[in-house]
Amino acid sequence: MKKTKRSTVKRVPKRGLYDQKSIYKLLDRNHLCHVGFIYEDFPVVIPTLYGRKENTIFLHGAVVSRLMTSLKKEIPLCISIAKTTGIVLARSAFNHSLNYESVILYGNGRLVEGFEKEEALKAISDHLIIGRWEECRPPTTKELKATHVISIDLDEVSAKVRTGGPQDDKEDYSSEYWAGVIPIKEGFGVPQPDQQLPDRLKKIPASVQNLTHKTNN
Amino acid sequence: MKKTKRSTVKRVPKRGLYDQKSIYKLLDRNHLCHVGFIYEDFPVVIPTLYGRKENTIFLHGAVVSRLMTSLKKEIPLCISIAKTTGIVLARSAFNHSLNYESVILYGNGRLVEGFEKEEALKAISDHLIIGRWEECRPPTTKELKATHVISIDLDEVSAKVRTGGPQDDKEDYSSEYWAGVIPIKEGFGVPQPDQQLPDRLKKIPASVQNLTHKTNN
Repeated sequence: MKKTKRSTVKRVPKRGLYDQKSIYKLLDRNHLCHVGFIYEDFPVVIPTLYGRKENTIFLHGAVVSRLMTSLKKEIPLCISIAKTTGIVLARSAFNHSLNYESVILYGNGRLVEGFEKEEALKAISDHLIIGRWEECRPPTTKELKATHVISIDLDEVSAKVRTGGPQDDKEDYSSEYWAGVIPIKEGFGVPQPDQQLPDRLKKIPASVQNLTHKTNN
Repeated sequence: MKKTKRSTVKRVPKRGLYDQKSIYKLLDRNHLCHVGFIYEDFPVVIPTLYGRKENTIFLHGAVVSRLMTSLKKEIPLCISIAKTTGIVLARSAFNHSLNYESVILYGNGRLVEGFEKEEALKAISDHLIIGRWEECRPPTTKELKATHVISIDLDEVSAKVRTGGPQDDKEDYSSEYWAGVIPIKEGFGVPQPDQQLPDRLKKIPASVQNLTHKTNN
């Protein structure tokens, strides 16, 4: 991982993180990213699922999609992963803020092919819900052909995190206004079996139990 | 609102929504957007708070930020608002999916100045937590000068929503695999008063009560 001009946090630099451990941790507990690229001279941002394996991020999609037909050309891209974790209410309107966690990655995509491709799809699946890949029908040759996988190395990457309470101006601490944080929480609801499942298959599988238990407890 | 080539949903077009009511509803229950623009010939995506008032989206930030110095030049931008609402587990790996809600807006920013500027900042505040603007110290002239506000009209905009269970291939319905949906839920935690508040100010204000009650019930 290298710190370049564009991957260096400029606004409130003390919130920037550049170490592998912090970045992997943030990437592994999120799954939705926004991919920005230039298409016909204008900027496009597309939300999509990602997966991480070692020092690589994988994206996938239909071969006919604008995202995949663009990224396979190895054009420059910017990937942002961000979540708000709290609303920070300060005594002054100006010092209101959000708690958040965010990762920004710059790079160029590379089309993943051959043996690596199915491995990458498994990595995306494992990233979202570990163990599920072994609990469903694997892709056919035709399905693999209809899907592109793009890899981006976690090279030019940085994270930014804000936690904690409001930081007010000194003179505002004697004001009569309430201040504090409203935490924003994300979790899983009760798994809903497909209505077309026969009774003998209605038991919630291990991968689903592990995911919903781990995250909500 | 107009449906243009770039704002038309291409992948799974039946999930596209173009009506004002649907788009406003999705915008109003989210607050984090990703703004894409071209900076020194490469794409940049930045996560930031937004507010909606009537048919306009407002963004704000420090006048020195790359986001604000770029957008005030009225360059083309793409804004994406997206949230995953469920993990859709199909019988086949290929038919796995996510439930989600998403809005994509294309346009060019415009710097908001004068009387409109404070109104726009209030709109951003109201969007996140209605009533808070009146419960804190308003911005000074100096603070207003340090902040830029950018407006983008909701003109070239579309939404895309997926709900419901897995759609498997016909022949997979007789397989032995579990299928279903794991809902993803977002909500507010218990408000945490700032530790420096005097006892007489510790009562949770109406705006905070309304927000956390409305959303979690």
